[in-house]
Amino acid sequence: MEQGARGAVRDVLDKALAEGRTALTAPEGRGICQAYGIATPGEGLATSAGQAEELAAEIGFPVVLKIVSPDILHKTDAGGVLVGLKTAEEVRDGFDRILANAQAYDPDARIDGVQVQRLVGGGHEVIVGAVTDPTFGKVVAFGLGGVLVEVLKDVTFRLAPVSGDEALGMLDDIKAAEVLRGARGAEPADRRALAELIERVSRLVTDFPEISEVDLNPVFADARGAVAADVRILIGEPPQEVNRLPREEILRQMTRIFKPRSVAVIGASAEDGKIGNSVMRNLINGGYAGQIFPINPKAPEIMGLPAYRSIADVPHDVDVAVFAIPAKFVPSALEDAGSKGVAGAIMIPSGFAETGNVEGQKEIVEIARRHGVRMLGPNIYGYYYTPENLCATFCTPYDVKGSVALTSQSGGIGMAILGFSRTTKMGVSAIVGVGNKADVDEDDLLTFFEQDDNTKAVAMHLEDLKDGRGFVDAARRVVREKPVIVLKAGRTAMGARAAGSHTGALAGDDKVYDDILRQAGVVRAPGLNDMLEYARALPILPAPKGENVVIITGAGGSGVLLSDACVDAGLTLMDIPPDLDQAFRAFIPPFGAAGNPVDITGGEPPSTYQNTVRLGLSDDRIHALVLGYWHTIVTPPMVFAELVARVVAEEREKGNVKPVVASLAGDTEVEEASEYLFEHGVVAYPYTTEKPVAVLGAKYRWARAAGLLG
Amino acid sequence: MEQGARGAVRDVLDKALAEGRTALTAPEGRGICQAYGIATPGEGLATSAGQAEELAAEIGFPVVLKIVSPDILHKTDAGGVLVGLKTAEEVRDGFDRILANAQAYDPDARIDGVQVQRLVGGGHEVIVGAVTDPTFGKVVAFGLGGVLVEVLKDVTFRLAPVSGDEALGMLDDIKAAEVLRGARGAEPADRRALAELIERVSRLVTDFPEISEVDLNPVFADARGAVAADVRILIGEPPQEVNRLPREEILRQMTRIFKPRSVAVIGASAEDGKIGNSVMRNLINGGYAGQIFPINPKAPEIMGLPAYRSIADVPHDVDVAVFAIPAKFVPSALEDAGSKGVAGAIMIPSGFAETGNVEGQKEIVEIARRHGVRMLGPNIYGYYYTPENLCATFCTPYDVKGSVALTSQSGGIGMAILGFSRTTKMGVSAIVGVGNKADVDEDDLLTFFEQDDNTKAVAMHLEDLKDGRGFVDAARRVVREKPVIVLKAGRTAMGARAAGSHTGALAGDDKVYDDILRQAGVVRAPGLNDMLEYARALPILPAPKGENVVIITGAGGSGVLLSDACVDAGLTLMDIPPDLDQAFRAFIPPFGAAGNPVDITGGEPPSTYQNTVRLGLSDDRIHALVLGYWHTIVTPPMVFAELVARVVAEEREKGNVKPVVASLAGDTEVEEASEYLFEHGVVAYPYTTEKPVAVLGAKYRWARAAGLLG
Repeated sequence: MEQGARGAVRDVLDKALAEGRTALTAPEGRGICQAYGIATPGEGLATSAGQAEELAAEIGFPVVLKIVSPDILHKTDAGGVLVGLKTAEEVRDGFDRILANAQAYDPDARIDGVQVQRLVGGGHEVIVGAVTDPTFGKVVAFGLGGVLVEVLKDVTFRLAPVSGDEALGMLDDIKAAEVLRGARGAEPADRRALAELIERVSRLVTDFPEISEVDLNPVFADARGAVAADVRILIGEPPQEVNRLPREEILRQMTRIFKPRSVAVIGASAEDGKIGNSVMRNLINGGYAGQIFPINPKAPEIMGLPAYRSIADVPHDVDVAVFAIPAKFVPSALEDAGSKGVAGAIMIPSGFAETGNVEGQKEIVEIARRHGVRMLGPNIYGYYYTPENLCATFCTPYDVKGSVALTSQSGGIGMAILGFSRTTKMGVSAIVGVGNKADVDEDDLLTFFEQDDNTKAVAMHLEDLKDGRGFVDAARRVVREKPVIVLKAGRTAMGARAAGSHTGALAGDDKVYDDILRQAGVVRAPGLNDMLEYARALPILPAPKGENVVIITGAGGSGVLLSDACVDAGLTLMDIPPDLDQAFRAFIPPFGAAGNPVDITGGEPPSTYQNTVRLGLSDDRIHALVLGYWHTIVTPPMVFAELVARVVAEEREKGNVKPVVASLAGDTEVEEASEYLFEHGVVAYPYTTEKPVAVLGAKYRWARAAGLLG
Repeated sequence: MEQGARGAVRDVLDKALAEGRTALTAPEGRGICQAYGIATPGEGLATSAGQAEELAAEIGFPVVLKIVSPDILHKTDAGGVLVGLKTAEEVRDGFDRILANAQAYDPDARIDGVQVQRLVGGGHEVIVGAVTDPTFGKVVAFGLGGVLVEVLKDVTFRLAPVSGDEALGMLDDIKAAEVLRGARGAEPADRRALAELIERVSRLVTDFPEISEVDLNPVFADARGAVAADVRILIGEPPQEVNRLPREEILRQMTRIFKPRSVAVIGASAEDGKIGNSVMRNLINGGYAGQIFPINPKAPEIMGLPAYRSIADVPHDVDVAVFAIPAKFVPSALEDAGSKGVAGAIMIPSGFAETGNVEGQKEIVEIARRHGVRMLGPNIYGYYYTPENLCATFCTPYDVKGSVALTSQSGGIGMAILGFSRTTKMGVSAIVGVGNKADVDEDDLLTFFEQDDNTKAVAMHLEDLKDGRGFVDAARRVVREKPVIVLKAGRTAMGARAAGSHTGALAGDDKVYDDILRQAGVVRAPGLNDMLEYARALPILPAPKGENVVIITGAGGSGVLLSDACVDAGLTLMDIPPDLDQAFRAFIPPFGAAGNPVDITGGEPPSTYQNTVRLGLSDDRIHALVLGYWHTIVTPPMVFAELVARVVAEEREKGNVKPVVASLAGDTEVEEASEYLFEHGVVAYPYTTEKPVAVLGAKYRWARAAGLLG
C-alpha cells in the first residue's frame, strides 16, 4: 500500500489509541477501507435531520441510517439502525427517532451523529474479516453471510497476508462454494474483486498489527464487484514479535544434538530402576558409538565408564547433556552444562510448568538461552535417533532403522509410538519427546528433519504450537520433499474465546488450525492410530504421478466398500477408457465387471490377479492401485501376497512405480499375507477396507500439497 | 383423512390418470393440498387478462402470475412466471406477456390459463416433499429452502406416514435446525404447524400410492403457520405391494433352519477339495449332534455315514438341505427337497443372478416357494450356528461360542468376519451368508435372532434391502432388546436417479438409507472394521443408564485425544459437580487435574488408578467410564489390567454395572493387557484413543434407540 494510504490509516489509529478506544467508529472504519481500496457504499455523517436529508438526496435513495457513537457497539440493540428509508421525510423522521432511541439506551453515550448510507444489497452476502490468533497472529477469514456462516460455521481461514491466488482459493474452500459460482441460477460473483478485497484486508492487518479484529459483514458481492456494507474494526496491543533464530543457527545446534560426538548423563546411576541408570543402559546397549560421560558426584565409575563429579570436569567437548536429576538440582547443573558449551540439554525431569512450577521453568529457559544451549523438554522421555544408534531415553530401546521421524508432546503418546513401532516393525529414524516445549519445538525439529537424509517423512503429535508461523514456514519447506503428518489434539475443544466480532467468534481454535495446517501442506491425521498408520505406510508408498485410482477386486462386496472408502478419502476413481476396459475384460470372466472397480470375481486363479494387476501397473493412464483380495482355495493368501509383491517389483524395474494398497478379506492367513506385502512395499491390511484407502488418501494429500500432481 | 377429502383427491387423480398425465397442474395440486388441510396462498385461475385483474384485486396485491399448462413443467424456463405484481395494470400486462412467452416456448402446449396467486414470503423458506423410494416406498422429506437444501443437501427423510412427533424430530434433524428456532434474531417458526404439514403430506402419499412425488417448495413457515407457496405433484404406477409372510410362519421355518434335527448334504463327497466334502467335514467335525444325510447318487457311504441317491430316499424327516452341486442340477434336486418337506435350502452354488442367470434364479425361487421351502442364497458360503455346533459351510469351521450373530451379503466380507472372529476370539452365535438373497433376507434373519436367546446383538453387512419396510419393522422390534449393527455398503455411490422434482433429486440412495436406518434404531457402522469391532464389543459392554461419561487418564495427552473422540462419538462429557470433583482430587496429586478428564498424571501407583476407577464406578451420577492408561514402571500394563478387571468385577457385584472402555498407551505389553481386559468385560485397545470411544459411542446410540436413556 502506498505511503498516503498508510498515513491515513495511521492517523485514524493514532487518534483512537490516544483516546483510549478499542473500537473505531463506522466512519473511521470506512475511511480505513477507502485508504486500502476496499469499496464501501456512498455515505456521510449527519449531525442534524436536515443534513441527513441533504446527504440522502446526494448519495441516492434508499438509504440506511445508523447511530455513530464510540459508546454504542451494538447499534441494532440500541435501536440505532433504520433500513430502507426511501424519502426525504422518512430520513428526517428517522434521524430524530434514532437519536431518541440511542439516548434512551444509554443516556451517557457520546453521540457523534448519524451515518447516512446508501442501501446496498443484492448479489451474494458474504463476510470477510480478520482476527489476531494467539497461535498464528493475523489471520484472515471468509464465509458466506447469514445462516451459512453463523449457524453452519461455513468459514475458512488463512494466515495474513494472503496472495491473490490464496484468496481465490478461499472462495472455493467453503462448503457452499458453488453459490458464488452462480448455483441455482444466481448471478455469479466477481471472484477476482472478492479475492482482491480479502487480500486487501489481509494486508491491512499485516501493515497495522494494532488492528486486532476486522469485520466486513456483510460484503455484497455480485458480477460488478464487492462492497463492504458494514465495517467494524477493533484495535488493541499489537501481538508480541516472536524471536526466531536464523535457520543456520538452528541447524547447527540440532545437528550437534541428533549426531553428537559425545553425551553426558547428568545423574547417571548404577542403581537399577533409576532414570539415570536406564539412560546409561540404553545409550550403551543401544550401540551409540560416541563418547559417554556419566556425571555423578559420588561414583568414580558407572557401568564400566569413568564418572565425573560435574560436567565441568569432563576432559572433552560435550555435545549433549541428558538430565536425569530432580528438578531442584537442574538450574545449577544446567549452568555447568552451559559453561561447558553443550549444544543440547535433554531435560527429562518433570516438576516444571506441568506441575505449576512456571517460575522454575522460566529460570532454566533463561539459563539455557544465556549459554546458547538448546533445551528439549522438560518433562520428556528423551529421544531416539536410530542412524546414530542413539537411545537417549529412560524408556526401552528401539533399533528398527527406517525413515520416519516421530515426535510427541505427551509421554503417553510417546509410549504408544514405541509400542506400535515395535509390534509393526515400523522403521524409524527418530522418536522425540518435546514435553513442555520450553525451548526446542516442532519447527526446530522440522528444520533438522528437512535436511536429514535419514528421514523421509515426519509425524508429529501436538497439542499446541508455541510459534504457529514458525511452524508453518518450516512445514512448508519440508512438505516440498517429505510428508509431514500432524495429529493435532484438542480438535473439538473449540476454545470459544471471548470475541468482539463475528469473525472472532467464528475463529474457534480448531477451525483456524485445520485451515492453516492444510494451507501449510500438512497431512492432518484424524486420530492417534491414523497418525501411526500414516507414519508407517507413507514412507514405503511411492508418490503418485496423477489422480487416476483403479480398484481391482476379487470380491464384489469389497469393491463396493473400497469405492466408498475412496470417495471418503478424496480419491478419484478413474473413468476407464474403452480400450483399457477391453484390456481388463480380456483377463476376467464374462460375468465379471470391468469399469472401476474391476471385479475379477471370486474363485479366480492367481493368473487373473497377476494379469490385471500387471495391466494396472503398466498402463500409464493409471496412477495408483487399490486391491481387494478374497481368500479362496484357488488363490490362497500367501500366493496372492507373493504374486502381487513380485509383479509390483517387476514393474518397478521397468519404471512403473506406483502406489499400491490392498485390503485382504479372509481367514487368519491374511494377516501373514498382509505383513509380507507391507514388507514388500505394498500397504496391506486384513479385515478392513477403510485403512488401506485412508493411507493412500493421505499420500495423495501430501502429493497434492507438494505440487506433484500439477 | 375423512371421506370427502379422499374423494376430492381421488377425482383429481382419476382425471389426470385418465388423460395419461404424469404431472398435476398447479391448481390441481392446490386442490389436493386443500383437501388434506395443507395451507396454500389465496389464488385462482384466470383465462383472460380481465379475469386475472379481478382475481388479483380479490386476493390482494402483490401477486404472482404463473402459466398453467400440462405440457410446461419448467415454468420459469418458459418465461411463465412473474413475481411481485403490485397493480391492476401490471397484472393485465403480465397476463399477456406470460401467454406470449409460453406460446413462443412451446407452440403446441395446451394452455389452461394463468394462475394468479397471492405473493407469500417472509418467515423461513423450507421444502417439504415426498418421493417413492425403490427400497422403502413412500418417504417424506424436509429441509430448509434455498442454498441449504440445494447446495448443502441439508435435508432429512422418514418413512411415510410419520407421526406428529416424528415430524417434529425431522425439524431438529437438519444441520441448520437452529434457524427454525429463531437463530440470529429471526422469528421462530410455528413448529407444530410445520410438523403437521409434514405429517399431512406423509398421509397423502400413503393414502394414494399413485402419487409418486410431492414437492412443496417453498413452504413459508413463520410464527403464525406454514403455507405451501408452490405445489408440484407427480403421479405414476403405484409401487408393487410386497408379499410378507406372517411372523409366526417365518419363525417356524427359521427355527427349523437354525436348530435342525437333521441336515442333508446334496452333493456330499468323499473327495478332498470338493465343496460337498468340506461341508460334510465341517458338519461332522464341528460336532453337530443331529442326523447328517449325505446325498450322492454314486457312493453308498461318505465319511462313515450311509449315503442316499436322492433326498427322497432318506428314511427320516429332513429339516435342512445344503446344496453342494452345480447350478444346472439345482432345480430338480430342489424339487426333491421340496417334496421331502425340508424347511431350508442352503443354496451354496453360484451361477445364478450374479453371473447373469436371472432366469435360473427365478426358476429355483419359484420351486422353493411352491414347496414352502425357505432358501438361503444362492451364491453363499453357507451358515454357522454355534449353539447347535452347526457349520453348514464349505469354509473353515468356527466354534467360539458367543452372543453376536453376523450376516453378510458378500462372501469376501463373510471370510473377513471369520478371520477377524478367529484372531480376536470373538464369540459368535451365528455367521450367515445371504448372497443373492433370492428368498431369505435380513428381515427373516432378524425375526429369528429377535427371539433367539443365544443372540444378544446382530451385525449385518448389506448392499441393498429387498424390502426396506420389512427390514425396518423387524429391526425396530429387535432394537428394543438387542443392538442391530449395520454396515451399509455403497454409501457414497449416490445413485442420483432421474427425478422430476427437487425432493426426488435430493433423495440420493444413501441419505435415505441413513435417515431411515437411524429412524429404525439401527447402529450404522462407518466401515467394515468398525462393524467387526462393534460386533465384538457391544455384547460385552453393559448398557449405560444415563449420558454422563467420565474420562480417567494417566496421560494428559491421551486425555485430550479421548475428549476429542468423545465429542466425535456424540458422547456427553459429564460436568463434574464440586463434591465429586473434591472426591477425585483426594486421590490424585495436587498438580493433577480433576474436572473431566480426571487427569491422575503419569507415574502414579496402582492405587491411584484403583481409587479413581472405583469412585467412577460407585458414584451413581456417572454412567460410563473411559480409561486412559500410560505405561510406566510404577504401574505396568498387566498390573493396570488386573486391577481394573478386579475393581470392575467387585463393583458389578455391588450392582454398579456400567460400561467401561480403555485406551492403552505403552510398549507392546499393552497388547496383552488389552486382551486381558477385553476378556474381563472391559473394551480395551492399544495404540488408539479413537476405537474404544467409538465403540462406547455405538453402545450409546443403541441405548438411546432402545429408549434406555429416557
